[in-house]
Amino acid sequence: MDKPQKRMTLIVFSNDMDKAMAAFILATGAASAGMEVTMFFTFWGLALLRKKDYTTNKKSIIERMFGIMLPKGPEASVLSKMNFFGAGTSMMKGVMKSKKMPQLHDLMKMALSLDVTIVACTTSMNMMGFTRDELIDNIDVGGVATYLGKAQNSSINLFI
Amino acid sequence: MDKPQKRMTLIVFSNDMDKAMAAFILATGAASAGMEVTMFFTFWGLALLRKKDYTTNKKSIIERMFGIMLPKGPEASVLSKMNFFGAGTSMMKGVMKSKKMPQLHDLMKMALSLDVTIVACTTSMNMMGFTRDELIDNIDVGGVATYLGKAQNSSINLFI
Amino acid sequence: MDKPQKRMTLIVFSNDMDKAMAAFILATGAASAGMEVTMFFTFWGLALLRKKDYTTNKKSIIERMFGIMLPKGPEASVLSKMNFFGAGTSMMKGVMKSKKMPQLHDLMKMALSLDVTIVACTTSMNMMGFTRDELIDNIDVGGVATYLGKAQNSSINLFI
Repeated sequence: MDKPQKRMTLIVFSNDMDKAMAAFILATGAASAGMEVTMFFTFWGLALLRKKDYTTNKKSIIERMFGIMLPKGPEASVLSKMNFFGAGTSMMKGVMKSKKMPQLHDLMKMALSLDVTIVACTTSMNMMGFTRDELIDNIDVGGVATYLGKAQNSSINLFI
Repeated sequence: MDKPQKRMTLIVFSNDMDKAMAAFILATGAASAGMEVTMFFTFWGLALLRKKDYTTNKKSIIERMFGIMLPKGPEASVLSKMNFFGAGTSMMKGVMKSKKMPQLHDLMKMALSLDVTIVACTTSMNMMGFTRDELIDNIDVGGVATYLGKAQNSSINLFI
Repeated sequence: MDKPQKRMTLIVFSNDMDKAMAAFILATGAASAGMEVTMFFTFWGLALLRKKDYTTNKKSIIERMFGIMLPKGPEASVLSKMNFFGAGTSMMKGVMKSKKMPQLHDLMKMALSLDVTIVACTTSMNMMGFTRDELIDNIDVGGVATYLGKAQNSSINLFI
């Protein structure tokens, strides 16, 4: 294996727009610098990987509730603070646009094009009733063993 | 000492049920795979180590307020999001039960039986007025120096 | 370079008083033990580096709104839980005072006197419209590349 200095893993537990942005800024920065980056999306973070337009009628009532209550992908995620029922999040998005900074969904596309490995946590998928189909393409699925294997050989491991 | 690849430390700062579950899923997964795992419970996280039925009349008013406001152990902890005054947390616990997934208190027992080292932060104990007596058995106490010593020789260090 | 065991980096994403205290307790503890510590203040965490008494009339409306809504330095930061419109935070500060524990602004001063490197994130400064002038003295500014360079050669890297 390559030297661990060249590897980073990020556990993305949160689906807050601000924390997800921090995660993707780190991931794309590291991948651009030639590092091998793996992002594990778990618990609320899983919602960032949902397709915008997926619908199904095969879910239990509780699974449908999770489906309704959690954001569908990066464009629906909101700030962890100062959201003010969406006004703060809109304001932040407007600021980023006016300053020509990439939005969260841009950063996600950039990460995939830079070969960042994105892994959806199987335990969380099971818990919340999200199937592979309703998550975006070009990602892997895996559990805690997958994570530990990668993290043991990485110099930077963060929980976000 | 053993190779650092075989060691992990987790700082458990939060007492949210979801974050605590993530911590214990990582800890038990790593310990099952033969890693040496140390978990440091600090600040709000300390509440996860409280005994359910401990009472005392030797505390100051403020210490009693901390005692009343913080959850008593894992079964009293709630979700960081979608708690809805307890409804969301109950729903999540119901889902886990129906899917035969271990609950937080099961994961904690599992961690102890797998020899995960659990350390209560002495600074936080002092700040919140929690004595050794009111925390669960089979744990250690320690401060920042204890943490740093362990973390310097671990390949995975996370703050949760 | 020195051995990585002697280095730690902390990303301070949050400006919550409790999380910031955890960060500075770790930083001052590590620096006292001879470790080289770098703290990166990003997103909400940037507010911890604001000068208390800086004013300007050169900002856009949105930048002024960020200025008003975010705390000005450590003394204005509040707890992430049990804040109760300031009452919980005051109570916690009172407890720390009565137990002769250092407050957040004391810990920050201590960190600087122990040569902890404090870096303000340029991307966040740009996003929120904070200029170098309105942040405290004796700190550096830098982006994700600065962070990655440090973190790759540190044994402890945490996201707080």
